[in-house]
Amino acid sequence: MKIHGENLTTIWEGADGASVEVLDQRVLPHLVESVTLRSVSDAHRAIVDMTVRGAPLIGVAAAYGLWLASLCWPARDFRPGLVRDAEYLKGSRPTAVNLAWAIDTLVAEVGALPEGADVPSALLAGARRIRERELAHCRAIGEHGVRLLEEAHRRAPGRPVRLLTHCNAGWLACIDWGTATAPIYVAQERGIPVEVWVDETRPRNQGASLTAFELGQQGIEHHVIVDNVGGHLMQHGLVDLCITGADRVTRRGDAANKIGTYLKALAAKDNHVPFYVALPSSTLDLTLGDGVAEIPIEERGPEEVTHITGWDGSTLRTVRVTPEGSPAVNYGFDVTPARLITGLITERGLCAAEEAAILRMLRGAPGAP
Amino acid sequence: MKIHGENLTTIWEGADGASVEVLDQRVLPHLVESVTLRSVSDAHRAIVDMTVRGAPLIGVAAAYGLWLASLCWPARDFRPGLVRDAEYLKGSRPTAVNLAWAIDTLVAEVGALPEGADVPSALLAGARRIRERELAHCRAIGEHGVRLLEEAHRRAPGRPVRLLTHCNAGWLACIDWGTATAPIYVAQERGIPVEVWVDETRPRNQGASLTAFELGQQGIEHHVIVDNVGGHLMQHGLVDLCITGADRVTRRGDAANKIGTYLKALAAKDNHVPFYVALPSSTLDLTLGDGVAEIPIEERGPEEVTHITGWDGSTLRTVRVTPEGSPAVNYGFDVTPARLITGLITERGLCAAEEAAILRMLRGAPGAP
Repeated sequence: MKIHGENLTTIWEGADGASVEVLDQRVLPHLVESVTLRSVSDAHRAIVDMTVRGAPLIGVAAAYGLWLASLCWPARDFRPGLVRDAEYLKGSRPTAVNLAWAIDTLVAEVGALPEGADVPSALLAGARRIRERELAHCRAIGEHGVRLLEEAHRRAPGRPVRLLTHCNAGWLACIDWGTATAPIYVAQERGIPVEVWVDETRPRNQGASLTAFELGQQGIEHHVIVDNVGGHLMQHGLVDLCITGADRVTRRGDAANKIGTYLKALAAKDNHVPFYVALPSSTLDLTLGDGVAEIPIEERGPEEVTHITGWDGSTLRTVRVTPEGSPAVNYGFDVTPARLITGLITERGLCAAEEAAILRMLRGAPGAP
Repeated sequence: MKIHGENLTTIWEGADGASVEVLDQRVLPHLVESVTLRSVSDAHRAIVDMTVRGAPLIGVAAAYGLWLASLCWPARDFRPGLVRDAEYLKGSRPTAVNLAWAIDTLVAEVGALPEGADVPSALLAGARRIRERELAHCRAIGEHGVRLLEEAHRRAPGRPVRLLTHCNAGWLACIDWGTATAPIYVAQERGIPVEVWVDETRPRNQGASLTAFELGQQGIEHHVIVDNVGGHLMQHGLVDLCITGADRVTRRGDAANKIGTYLKALAAKDNHVPFYVALPSSTLDLTLGDGVAEIPIEERGPEEVTHITGWDGSTLRTVRVTPEGSPAVNYGFDVTPARLITGLITERGLCAAEEAAILRMLRGAPGAP
């Protein structure tokens, strides 16, 4: 997708053959800068401090991080380094399942190699494959999801389709296309007008800063709203459908996503607005059933709530919005029960948010995760 | 209630006999300052720019504004001024019914006076009476509402009662005590431990800046959370009850309150958490039935969404949080249907959110509005 008219992705290999470049998502939309990762600790830090964020992108960044790590492992015995650095990277963010999936996939592949094998080359090939896979999956999610927008447009052809999304499940959370946004970009290719309500998504404002930015750069009509507004819009018939991303979806279809997603799903249900979750099937965690009880929810630092960073006209500046001495609590995600989800949009197609349908979808198509 | 250990109210008469002082709520919690109102346009501006806010306080400020206006009316014919300035003040905020109620009450009283009557003295007496009435009503709301906290404490005596509130329906929104907070302050007097989840309340952050501030100053345990968190807390049994204020409640019990209240009420219903709305009965608008269809919802400027003001360590500073060129939409209120409200807490007692119960409560007690 485009930034200032130029086609970019969120992560690419450095020209020196020993580094990775990532778009710095902490300074968007105010500055467009990249950060160079040269070591596993650079990659770990980029995930922890959210230089990169978004479940699919985190997985790819971690995969490249394992490659960067391997450049320092002794050639004669890579296994201790592999185990240590894989655990280290998996500990960087607890909620997104893609991260663990990417690392586990690479560990299994590389762990099977004989002593003396070219482990760095194998990991680089693996990271590239995961990157290409995520990219292709996002495009496929767009192809499947656009049917929902086409239908909505057929029902009300005289105006744009009005879609609400929460957080950033856009191309900035992935490599390109995005998950929740992919159907929007494919709709744009097909000439279907779409207007997006962009939830600000406190506390880190990924909607206001990233989703609004990428939609604007791509020329998609949108309005930023605070997270409190969605229910009112749905009560008044101003939302045709909701699409969000997910960080982890259980086999029963419960979806962990950015904190506040559950509230929008409740409002959608209460107002008969379809609520879809877009995800690559690598985000499915079949080991879990009851998402509310079983998905670990990351608690982040209170300063993300008490302080806000923005552009003061000449520089990024952080201001405190709470009284000195008032403590804050900061849960990063919540779980939307499957009963509130109209359907899942994956690279394999549309699917009901229920165990039998999910397992059928996974069995039915080749390359199940 | 206290600020820096000193007992204060939100509005008081100036020593010069021709002005009114109000706490400047735009700079709290970072600065504690008052603003002097000397004319009807000062009062109008203070309401429009939210130097004063909160339905009960707006009503009192408008009442004093009409008094300030009267100081400039010709003694021989006050009626044209009365009509003009009453309309002017009523136009300052559209959603709060207390504003219209206060002005209409004074207009009816003063309109009945003979030519040559001392209109300014009558209006000053009327404004004082409305102020005292709001104060007494808040205290009474506290006395009635504390029963809910006492009950919750009896059910789980080993820990504080955990209450969630949205926006600021505290003493800063009133004269003293508050509406939603009055039960908390009365509980404090009675030694019942209460812990409050304070919704930040974007876009103007009245929770993070005002509710957190007044609770902290009063020594009430609290945590600030972003508006997205409440559903997650309720899913995990961390909220015993919700109490919010209201800007207008219809005869059927539908409640207009700060945008986002509806989402919390949905989450409360979904998790069997009692959801109460605290209000002086002057906030009831018996002329309206279906709140979602009939209550006018104020749309405010987009800059409240795109920009955030906070403390940078030495001064108040405003930063932009959205991309340049991304438009924003800013609805100030939403309507929570009565079916999601467990009950109303008014100065007359607890009452179901339904027409028959509301009318019975109003008939049963003296001094109906």
